[in-house]
Amino acid sequence: MRTFWTTFLFLFFLLSLYQSCFGSDAPPISDKTKTCLSCHNTIHPGIVEDWQTSRHSHNTPKQSQQVQGLAKRISSSDIPKNLQKVTVGCAECHTLSPKTHKDSFSHAGFQVHTVVTPKDCALCHRQETEQYARNIMSFARKNLNQNPVYQDLQRTIHGTIIEDKTKIGFQPANNFTRAESCYYCHGTQLLVTGNKTRKTSMGPMQFPIIKGWPNQGSGRVNPDKSKGSCTACHTRHAFSIAEARKPYTCKECHIGPDVPAYKVYSASKHGNIFFAKVNSWNFSKVPWTVGQDFTAPTCAVCHMSLTVDKNGQVIAKRSHNMGTRLSWRIFGLIYAHPHPSEPDTTKLKNSAGLNLPTELNGQPIENGLIDPTQQKTRKNRMQAVCKACHGSSWVNNHWQRLQNTITQSNKAVKAATESMSAIWEKGLAQKKSLFDEAIEKKWSNIWLINANKIRFASAMAGGGDYGVFAQGRFALSKKIKEMEDWFLIHRKLSQ
Amino acid sequence: MRTFWTTFLFLFFLLSLYQSCFGSDAPPISDKTKTCLSCHNTIHPGIVEDWQTSRHSHNTPKQSQQVQGLAKRISSSDIPKNLQKVTVGCAECHTLSPKTHKDSFSHAGFQVHTVVTPKDCALCHRQETEQYARNIMSFARKNLNQNPVYQDLQRTIHGTIIEDKTKIGFQPANNFTRAESCYYCHGTQLLVTGNKTRKTSMGPMQFPIIKGWPNQGSGRVNPDKSKGSCTACHTRHAFSIAEARKPYTCKECHIGPDVPAYKVYSASKHGNIFFAKVNSWNFSKVPWTVGQDFTAPTCAVCHMSLTVDKNGQVIAKRSHNMGTRLSWRIFGLIYAHPHPSEPDTTKLKNSAGLNLPTELNGQPIENGLIDPTQQKTRKNRMQAVCKACHGSSWVNNHWQRLQNTITQSNKAVKAATESMSAIWEKGLAQKKSLFDEAIEKKWSNIWLINANKIRFASAMAGGGDYGVFAQGRFALSKKIKEMEDWFLIHRKLSQ
Amino acid sequence: MRTFWTTFLFLFFLLSLYQSCFGSDAPPISDKTKTCLSCHNTIHPGIVEDWQTSRHSHNTPKQSQQVQGLAKRISSSDIPKNLQKVTVGCAECHTLSPKTHKDSFSHAGFQVHTVVTPKDCALCHRQETEQYARNIMSFARKNLNQNPVYQDLQRTIHGTIIEDKTKIGFQPANNFTRAESCYYCHGTQLLVTGNKTRKTSMGPMQFPIIKGWPNQGSGRVNPDKSKGSCTACHTRHAFSIAEARKPYTCKECHIGPDVPAYKVYSASKHGNIFFAKVNSWNFSKVPWTVGQDFTAPTCAVCHMSLTVDKNGQVIAKRSHNMGTRLSWRIFGLIYAHPHPSEPDTTKLKNSAGLNLPTELNGQPIENGLIDPTQQKTRKNRMQAVCKACHGSSWVNNHWQRLQNTITQSNKAVKAATESMSAIWEKGLAQKKSLFDEAIEKKWSNIWLINANKIRFASAMAGGGDYGVFAQGRFALSKKIKEMEDWFLIHRKLSQ
Repeated sequence: MRTFWTTFLFLFFLLSLYQSCFGSDAPPISDKTKTCLSCHNTIHPGIVEDWQTSRHSHNTPKQSQQVQGLAKRISSSDIPKNLQKVTVGCAECHTLSPKTHKDSFSHAGFQVHTVVTPKDCALCHRQETEQYARNIMSFARKNLNQNPVYQDLQRTIHGTIIEDKTKIGFQPANNFTRAESCYYCHGTQLLVTGNKTRKTSMGPMQFPIIKGWPNQGSGRVNPDKSKGSCTACHTRHAFSIAEARKPYTCKECHIGPDVPAYKVYSASKHGNIFFAKVNSWNFSKVPWTVGQDFTAPTCAVCHMSLTVDKNGQVIAKRSHNMGTRLSWRIFGLIYAHPHPSEPDTTKLKNSAGLNLPTELNGQPIENGLIDPTQQKTRKNRMQAVCKACHGSSWVNNHWQRLQNTITQSNKAVKAATESMSAIWEKGLAQKKSLFDEAIEKKWSNIWLINANKIRFASAMAGGGDYGVFAQGRFALSKKIKEMEDWFLIHRKLSQ
Repeated sequence: MRTFWTTFLFLFFLLSLYQSCFGSDAPPISDKTKTCLSCHNTIHPGIVEDWQTSRHSHNTPKQSQQVQGLAKRISSSDIPKNLQKVTVGCAECHTLSPKTHKDSFSHAGFQVHTVVTPKDCALCHRQETEQYARNIMSFARKNLNQNPVYQDLQRTIHGTIIEDKTKIGFQPANNFTRAESCYYCHGTQLLVTGNKTRKTSMGPMQFPIIKGWPNQGSGRVNPDKSKGSCTACHTRHAFSIAEARKPYTCKECHIGPDVPAYKVYSASKHGNIFFAKVNSWNFSKVPWTVGQDFTAPTCAVCHMSLTVDKNGQVIAKRSHNMGTRLSWRIFGLIYAHPHPSEPDTTKLKNSAGLNLPTELNGQPIENGLIDPTQQKTRKNRMQAVCKACHGSSWVNNHWQRLQNTITQSNKAVKAATESMSAIWEKGLAQKKSLFDEAIEKKWSNIWLINANKIRFASAMAGGGDYGVFAQGRFALSKKIKEMEDWFLIHRKLSQ
Repeated sequence: MRTFWTTFLFLFFLLSLYQSCFGSDAPPISDKTKTCLSCHNTIHPGIVEDWQTSRHSHNTPKQSQQVQGLAKRISSSDIPKNLQKVTVGCAECHTLSPKTHKDSFSHAGFQVHTVVTPKDCALCHRQETEQYARNIMSFARKNLNQNPVYQDLQRTIHGTIIEDKTKIGFQPANNFTRAESCYYCHGTQLLVTGNKTRKTSMGPMQFPIIKGWPNQGSGRVNPDKSKGSCTACHTRHAFSIAEARKPYTCKECHIGPDVPAYKVYSASKHGNIFFAKVNSWNFSKVPWTVGQDFTAPTCAVCHMSLTVDKNGQVIAKRSHNMGTRLSWRIFGLIYAHPHPSEPDTTKLKNSAGLNLPTELNGQPIENGLIDPTQQKTRKNRMQAVCKACHGSSWVNNHWQRLQNTITQSNKAVKAATESMSAIWEKGLAQKKSLFDEAIEKKWSNIWLINANKIRFASAMAGGGDYGVFAQGRFALSKKIKEMEDWFLIHRKLSQ
């Protein structure tokens, strides 16, 4: 009998312990948010439940501010009093600064906006927002949309096919197509074009019509004129750091074959270790301890995260501007080249007047790209991450190979471009558009896909099967010979 | 000392608790199944162990029938008494209705059949079997095998290459090749062709020879004339609902690039969330609660599963006929078109007499496809799933883009088909087979791979990198220009 | 109060229990290793932490030797006394036999070498090292590097593109390129070329310069002349059997499309089960019990691991020579053929004097390949694994289809090769190099990628969508017709 009571009391003790750790003093939800939840709980259970798994629903800004040192997850110090002591719920974000939000509308007694923007998030996460505004990714839309060279490239890829038996052409794509092709990742422009009344389970209600919605592109232009979408990586409504640190997030846009980061990672030694051990790693801890929280890098480790050793010494500082660790831009353009110094690349212009960072022969332009000193600074920041697990000779030799691959792949593209130039000279293709004929598309394939693949494999995996056979070296060498063959055929035919 | 005893007794108490929860009253295994296990335990340990992880080995039909409401996993009410109170073991399935099974054979004193079919499963899961029989997937074999257009397409893909220096041709593939190419997924026909005596560890034994075995294709034609294979998704011998709900199951057949569902999913926002959080989700619960059991859809959530909100309100009803939520058929055919109204598509015929759901210009045929009202009904069923996590404007705009992509991709295919028609007209390719020449294969590639990729990316991911560069828009626009280039070369050469 | 004390003492008891299981009597770390750790703990926290997760850091060779029977993980009996009773730490491996290591250098008072080789590992794992030395993988570098046919193939894939407007050619690649393309997997040769003084946080230090470093290729030639790198699969510094048993490890080199093992596996039924259930399997147990530790094979299960049934009966013996279970070589060469009998394939020569295992018409050469008896022995070893979960008719029929696919795919390649021969004969391509022209690259693509894909899908998945559309049958049939089309064009142009 005594045993029974002892056991009973012991279980009771455990329960109390649990209560005191997890159960009591849950931070308060604001009244406004409670109102939101009262309906949306039922209407959008998925969103609400997701939010309930978030730190936003379990912490107040005040609590987060009290954390000291590297573990702090919040970077603003001047958070309005009325928001400090409630959790970060629906209303806290969706009713913030209604005047700057063109999509703000009257809804159930509040001024609500659909699109929460980096400016909203900056209230608590100012530093991250400022860093991101300097990240080339925040200009992903502008850099694509306002560059005539790229506008032409787009048109010839996702444009509407014109049916004409003598010639197949490409008209500029309509907005629906644009929003789900290039601008899905690069970001749409969100424009409020009017209002619409819709029947709902609560009766008829008015909602804004937002052109370009939905979208979470990294360079989205928001109704409040800010750029970007934090939810591109921190998916609504969990806004999880753990999720953003896993490579699946980056995969959404960096899958390829034009930018095959995820594929190369997943075939690399680092990827092997990640997939084998992911379940024993801690993706939520801040700061993130090398060797204890993880034993091989994910995308975030190398490009973004705050990492420390087990003594708490900083290995790399967090930055939402990936540029701080990138010496070279190895994809998307005809040649690899030193990283642009400003996030707005529409100002870059080569001697032929094209908005490109290099000449057609591969020579980097003089203004607008980082110089060798800056390249070295960035390389050192990146190498600090490598050196937490690799000796110096390992790291240096890896870098030497990457440097060689940049040179060699640029050389191959130069040969292809010279072939292309000879074809243009002979009048067998028209230079009016650089991208709209069969042979021009073969040439584009070489630099937009094959050379990129080779460089990604080199940079992220030290090479391997993927860089050789998965649309890398084998395909590049094949296509360059096919260009030659094509030229031969058409020269003969035009005689 | 007292402490020791207290602890000892406490541990004993825990053990008893465990016993009472998990240990006692295990439902009985039938004597017949015990006989099977006595040998197969040793001969096929993998199968037996797998079965021991299954619900079939832990529950009797009676127990499953007693579950009420949405949690019920069994849909037949008239299960024979002798099967109600034993677990579902080897004998319960493999000795059922021996007379209807042509592969039934005398084995260790029982009439046993190798191939368990949907008719067998229907004994307990009648509703699911009936739904599946209306699913176009159950006709996957017939629709491919009895359609002359597709027979020709097959021949030119997996046919035996005829060696002839002047011309390379394709003879119909042999049965071994057929069984592991198209019919691996579409299903073989299982035919008992005789018996064979084989030495076994138990002495010589006779077994039926089953042509077409092994196969778990979704449209398999079974020895009892039923269609399909439940084990295509509910893998033997665990028959797990959790496994079927994960996207890896669908991936076996929907990987691509002709039907790139898994690839697109894995690069989508939904896929990102799935991979990041899969280990914290509950894949076994019935019904399946949005937000609690999972926070992003898998294939099953959108296409098949019974889902509820946390109040138990039904969001979508379970159906093993995926057609109930599908408005369009976006792959496999030359053009996207309204979904066929009947699972048997061999009756569809266009004005040229071809067994196709559209004319060669893309116009859907008049009979046999669902009408706009039915399309809307199905769209609403699907959108109910979306709306558990997304607002109406999000969902409507997504759909508008998909609709646009169906139109635009069909238009692109039409342009390619017009090029192809012009080539046929000029006699530069022969229309006798639509698929067996180099240029016809380029044209097939456009609709069978590229246009599909674009539509899948649109439907399942809202677009993104994958639809543009992974054999989508870039490849389509390249190939259509290559068709033009080819035509030019051959016109000049034939002058 | 009594409750409090009871609880306190109970928790204390639990703590003691934990201590006695995990905390006390940790095996000693050698003094030498302690010295290493005193600095590298801080300099390379990632490496050190990884090692601390390893069995090497928790066990002494003596402890491992005491394990009896199939659970034993160590195969040498004559381990030096001084190493028997300490854990396997930095110094134990990196200071072993300094005289045989050309990369040995004086470092902090020790003779240390950077590259730990199979010879070092053999001290404890002799049997595994001996088996691996017979594995064709240990000759991966030599077989590629000393075969003139393959040297030419390499040159035309990763060679430096020569810029010349009239002709595009390929110069042999430089060493940096070689190290990150073919030789990343096949292995570099590690050569000590000198010394270099580097500033470190401990002051200036001298290190050897090792050409070819870093590399973990399976056929790496080490400074002590041994071949291979155990860390190719057992990644430093955890050296985990669990990691090596997961398919991600094999994926690093077998991803494709030239050797698409991982891709085919991941789209197979086995892969489906693996991904769905991986978290509930035990990847660390030795021996590995079918049905209990795992319910579907990974790469290791079929090709390498010691597996038993639940009674401890051996299903397959462990071997680090994969050849023991391989009847056919289905990739990398022009035709599938019986596996080479010796790991060194540079001696194989066909009647045309080329270092190939077959004639150009597909006929296997007479010497150097295993005979039908040996093929059968190996097939039986492999089938024993299949039969743990599949009936004999299943297994036999699977094999019959694979056999058919080997025949059919060889036949298709023969047709392509006859086309190619006719092209060579007509002088439309030059046979000086078999691989450097556009049409030769199309022919190479057929056997190096398409036919391989078909055979892998057959062997590992029983076929399926992947073998048909993912660069398999559809691509093969397309490319063979494109060869024919090319021939027609160039014949007409050369008239």
